Amino acid sequence: MFPDYDVIVVGAGHAGCEAAAAAANIGSKTLLVTMNMQTIAQMSCNPAMGGIAKGQIVREIDALGGYSGIVTDLSMIQFRMLNRSKGPAMWSPRAQSDRMLFAAKWREMLEQTPNLDFYQDMVKGLLVKDGFVKGVVTGLGHEIRSKAVVLTNGTFLNGIIHIGEKQFGGGRVAEKAASGITEQLVSLGFESDRLKTGTPPRVDGRSLDYTKMEVQDGDEEIVGFSFTDTPKIKASEQRCCWITYTDQKVHDMLKTGFDRSPMYAGRIDGVGPRYCPSIEDKINRFADKERHQLFVEPEGWNTVEIYVNGFSTSLPEDVQYAALRMVPGFENARLFRPGYAIEYDYFPPTQLKNTLETKLIRNLFFAGQINGTTGYEEAACQGIVAGINAHLNGNDAAPFTLKRSDAYIGVLIDDLINKGTEEPYRMFTSRAEYRTLLRQDNADARLTPIGYKLGLASEERMNKIRQKTENIANIRTILKEASLKPEEINGFLLKHNSSQIQEKQKAEKILLRPDIELSHLVDAIPALKEQVKNYTREELEQASILAKYETYIEKEKELVNRMSDMENLAIPQAFDYSKLSSLGNEAREKLNRIRPQTLGQASRISGIKPSDIQILMVYMGR
Amino acid sequence: MFPDYDVIVVGAGHAGCEAAAAAANIGSKTLLVTMNMQTIAQMSCNPAMGGIAKGQIVREIDALGGYSGIVTDLSMIQFRMLNRSKGPAMWSPRAQSDRMLFAAKWREMLEQTPNLDFYQDMVKGLLVKDGFVKGVVTGLGHEIRSKAVVLTNGTFLNGIIHIGEKQFGGGRVAEKAASGITEQLVSLGFESDRLKTGTPPRVDGRSLDYTKMEVQDGDEEIVGFSFTDTPKIKASEQRCCWITYTDQKVHDMLKTGFDRSPMYAGRIDGVGPRYCPSIEDKINRFADKERHQLFVEPEGWNTVEIYVNGFSTSLPEDVQYAALRMVPGFENARLFRPGYAIEYDYFPPTQLKNTLETKLIRNLFFAGQINGTTGYEEAACQGIVAGINAHLNGNDAAPFTLKRSDAYIGVLIDDLINKGTEEPYRMFTSRAEYRTLLRQDNADARLTPIGYKLGLASEERMNKIRQKTENIANIRTILKEASLKPEEINGFLLKHNSSQIQEKQKAEKILLRPDIELSHLVDAIPALKEQVKNYTREELEQASILAKYETYIEKEKELVNRMSDMENLAIPQAFDYSKLSSLGNEAREKLNRIRPQTLGQASRISGIKPSDIQILMVYMGR
Ligand SMILES: Cc1cc2nc3c(=O)[nH]c(=O)nc-3n(C[C@H](O)[C@H](O)[C@H](O)COP(=O)(O)OP(=O)(O)OC[C@H]3O[C@@H](n4cnc5c(N)ncnc54)[C@H](O)[C@@H]3O)c2cc1C
Ligand SMILES: Cc1cc2nc3c(=O)[nH]c(=O)nc-3n(C[C@H](O)[C@H](O)[C@H](O)COP(=O)(O)OP(=O)(O)OC[C@H]3O[C@@H](n4cnc5c(N)ncnc54)[C@H](O)[C@@H]3O)c2cc1C
Repeated sequence: MFPDYDVIVVGAGHAGCEAAAAAANIGSKTLLVTMNMQTIAQMSCNPAMGGIAKGQIVREIDALGGYSGIVTDLSMIQFRMLNRSKGPAMWSPRAQSDRMLFAAKWREMLEQTPNLDFYQDMVKGLLVKDGFVKGVVTGLGHEIRSKAVVLTNGTFLNGIIHIGEKQFGGGRVAEKAASGITEQLVSLGFESDRLKTGTPPRVDGRSLDYTKMEVQDGDEEIVGFSFTDTPKIKASEQRCCWITYTDQKVHDMLKTGFDRSPMYAGRIDGVGPRYCPSIEDKINRFADKERHQLFVEPEGWNTVEIYVNGFSTSLPEDVQYAALRMVPGFENARLFRPGYAIEYDYFPPTQLKNTLETKLIRNLFFAGQINGTTGYEEAACQGIVAGINAHLNGNDAAPFTLKRSDAYIGVLIDDLINKGTEEPYRMFTSRAEYRTLLRQDNADARLTPIGYKLGLASEERMNKIRQKTENIANIRTILKEASLKPEEINGFLLKHNSSQIQEKQKAEKILLRPDIELSHLVDAIPALKEQVKNYTREELEQASILAKYETYIEKEKELVNRMSDMENLAIPQAFDYSKLSSLGNEAREKLNRIRPQTLGQASRISGIKPSDIQILMVYMGR
Repeated sequence: MFPDYDVIVVGAGHAGCEAAAAAANIGSKTLLVTMNMQTIAQMSCNPAMGGIAKGQIVREIDALGGYSGIVTDLSMIQFRMLNRSKGPAMWSPRAQSDRMLFAAKWREMLEQTPNLDFYQDMVKGLLVKDGFVKGVVTGLGHEIRSKAVVLTNGTFLNGIIHIGEKQFGGGRVAEKAASGITEQLVSLGFESDRLKTGTPPRVDGRSLDYTKMEVQDGDEEIVGFSFTDTPKIKASEQRCCWITYTDQKVHDMLKTGFDRSPMYAGRIDGVGPRYCPSIEDKINRFADKERHQLFVEPEGWNTVEIYVNGFSTSLPEDVQYAALRMVPGFENARLFRPGYAIEYDYFPPTQLKNTLETKLIRNLFFAGQINGTTGYEEAACQGIVAGINAHLNGNDAAPFTLKRSDAYIGVLIDDLINKGTEEPYRMFTSRAEYRTLLRQDNADARLTPIGYKLGLASEERMNKIRQKTENIANIRTILKEASLKPEEINGFLLKHNSSQIQEKQKAEKILLRPDIELSHLVDAIPALKEQVKNYTREELEQASILAKYETYIEKEKELVNRMSDMENLAIPQAFDYSKLSSLGNEAREKLNRIRPQTLGQASRISGIKPSDIQILMVYMGR
């Protein structure tokens, strides 16, 4: 019934959708098998994309030629560039999406992707022969063959949902869990474990009193995510969100449910996300905090459903309800659906290569929550990497990997495969060593050439970044050459509380002053304005960043170079660590298990000390 | 956690949505509880509304003030008035809908309905006390109280899905079944039984060769369903459908799967819809038919998913696939999802009053597929009736019922409660005795005044029909008065192959000729055209129908009057049939069980003979 495929992707969540799109777009005959075609790219939790470090990832996916950025741009109801007041390394785009529109647009884009077929069924096992994956077996009993398989089962593997003392099977509430895959993989030698995550209640927006909350408007300018010309909404059309707070009374009420909480009563074995804690975790762990912020976010353009961001909980529903009603603005709140926690199987990601292929079974890839991450962006970026490599493997081409200095995606995968994770892994800017290099604004410069070479980013994207790079260079030349006289600039400097100049100075030098912004400077000097008038806001902004942060950027680049010598020092695959008695026990055991491919990778394994690396270097003849 | 409600509606299918909207709109504090708020008003099977007799029902729902017509108008991708070549009693509007948009628009409208709350949970039982329903119990353990409950569980009660030799629980594919309710109701004395229905496979439109099929375009004029000013798409924007045919080869291939068919192997106990048969039923029952028509219908504006109308099947998937690929245009077809059959519990509807309240438990209503019907329209119209009566019951107001001469809805409910049904009940024009009265074009005249009195149809709707009625009367006066001279009309008559006149004749008389249409006549006579120029196409059409079919209409009205004497003859509720030894055994048993409220109702119970009615009349002193 089915042709042979190059790549089969299991699951149409964020990881699966990006994986399928990438594999198909670079030429693999691809099949996306998912349990329910009506839930393609469903957002399980909050209807938002991006945010700190996550927004960078979405732009990186976009720069490579993925779809997440375009879909977000097409479905957003509000956009904000977070951290604008900090340095540009911290700027992070975030969008509130229309939940239904987001899924609809994803499905539309996938349907328009050549080489990509769809099939609705539950995959319950893999075809494996001689250490190679050969396809999948579905619930209806079909054996579908392929050269590679990407598993992106999300929270569905043996998922169990908890609300207070109630528990029942499910991959998300009102959706079935998936079984069979974990059991088979474990029998093949994989290690699996349990994690948990949670979601807040949804309420009826008609029952809230917004006058008691703070309004949170969208930005006045919508930068968006995609580097393409995807149309964006007008700033004035945006929906607003609201902010409110819990207080001691709310916390006390929540505590009355602790004895019936699945977490505290020990019914949940899985570890939850420390960085995205439930409200009960927050009041427990940060007992001295008097209040916690709640973001009150609409679920779409035309719905009254409201997402209560910050109130994730698996307490009994009556307690959720009673506590929520004590929050200012929520006095008369009606629940649409309760919050809940879900426990699911994941596979510790140290079982993967940096291509996301498993070490145990060739051509089998894992991407997304199945690897112990949490978040749509984290899932999606693994999807695109796995999809690309599933294609490349089948064509005996060199693998596609990203270094920690290339992208947040590189950081994420490197962390996962080396350090593993014992709690749901979420991206933070602090995880990246080179964050001045890995900015959201330059993701296209960093990654589009790579995506283009892979055949994933289009010619059009490539031309855009070529042009942009050239334009930025031109702007910098203009700034370097423009000599400003005291009489034409001192008034402006005075106005901006910046010391005045005595003799001519280059525009770029003025720009280096922390309180001077390029846009203001340009506005003040008509001659300069004339010279840059044909460049876009984006180009000007980036030229300004490059000028202002040049020293930092150069320093980071130098560091990258120094590290990359060691980074690239390959460790022979047959290397026998057990013979190195001078290594600590822990180091020997970990190195033997993880088998890092390079010395750099070895250095980032948790528990490996610099002294261990020194010993290795000696034994490798360095 | 929950306030006390006036009405709780269980299930947000077509029946549940109309029930909730109706109850809330006429003033009941209403709660709609459904398993998954993401599947509100999901179309389980074909993405189409209306059709023969069903289109009339949608317009009737609309005339009363329901939402189905508006939602269909807002989500249609193609419109056709079926049977235009036949008499106006047969004209039936039908629309192909965008599946996702249909559900989205329903949800939007429900969210905008005051008095209506939502809650996502599975209802697993009822609160019953002293023969009265008092509320529901949910899967999460909540007891929610109300004065009335409307059950609209559709195909979900102990649903089992069959595909070839595979079977698994589910209310629709990829959705959970519901349990608990049947068991409780049976323990309370209700009778339940099993029915089955089926759905065809969905295919990838990109894999079809449309050049081998016949194109089926939408109408050039979009009449639509709602009598309100709901905006409609432009005719030119419509999507086309296609027609293709099975042939002997396809049938032979399908037959190879019969031994693995759940129907023929006896794995399905439920009775299927005789009037909406599976393709295997068709080739079995109509063995001499060489081919069957298939309608190839897009699922929406922006999707490549295609619905293969006419190919409903539960044969093994490999057989579905192999047979489908033999259909012209489907040579390279790829399946998205296989066809399947579903078996589910229903409650024989003779257990209901004509308000759709159960006879056994006060204030408990059943509506939709749970009553043994099939089809969105049949479900929706029961929903609105049940929703209205749930409200009226709670307010001790007189019940709302529709007679067979009022509406198709009246025919449907009267059939159900009196005759019951042993197979999925579907509406046909042939079920209605008074179909010249029950036209789609006059549903507003028939029902909007009733809906308005109930507080359901808006003032605006009422004003519209008042104006329309007046305008139609004016047009008829114009036609009755306009005297046409031979010289001004004979050319026109000649052109339309109609015999010429010798002396002046009234326009209305000319119109009575079968080959003369009002629009043509008006176009030919400038003076007439001038007189009617301010009336709408709809008003002209209806005036024309009233003129042309006056004799039929009058005859039917007379019949209605004659029958209604008997119809309205109430049978005392305590009437003891067992004493009437002159009644046949079957009649005695059935009358005792069904307990008809009027003699008319008694006369329509299947198995009751005219002689039985005579006997009853004698005993009742007539
Ligand atoms: C209750 C809940 C709360 C969450 N809270 C947060 C949060 O607070 N913060 C945060 O960042 N993230 C949160 N998440 C996580 C976020 O939703 C995920 O990280 C993200 O969706 C993972 O994407 P994915 O593609 O890996 O998997 P998913 O989005 O889970 O998609 C998996 C897909 O695979 C399909 N599938 C699974 N098994 C099979 C099979 N055997 N055969 C066929 N198809 C299959 C499913 O139908 C689904 O389409 C939460 C998730 C849930 C469920
Ligand atoms: C496979 C299939 C094939 C079909 N084929 C045809 C066809 O060929 N022709 C035709 O005319 N019709 C067909 N139908 C029937 C058509 O879909 C139904 O007649 C129509 O949808 C019935 O509407 P309803 O409102 O009664 O129930 P449904 O549309 O089934 O809706 C029931 C709703 O109730 C909810 N629900 C159920 N139980 C509970 C509970 N315990 N608690 C909370 N919520 C609950 C469900 O989630 C759902 O939202 C088919 C249906 C199916 C499933």
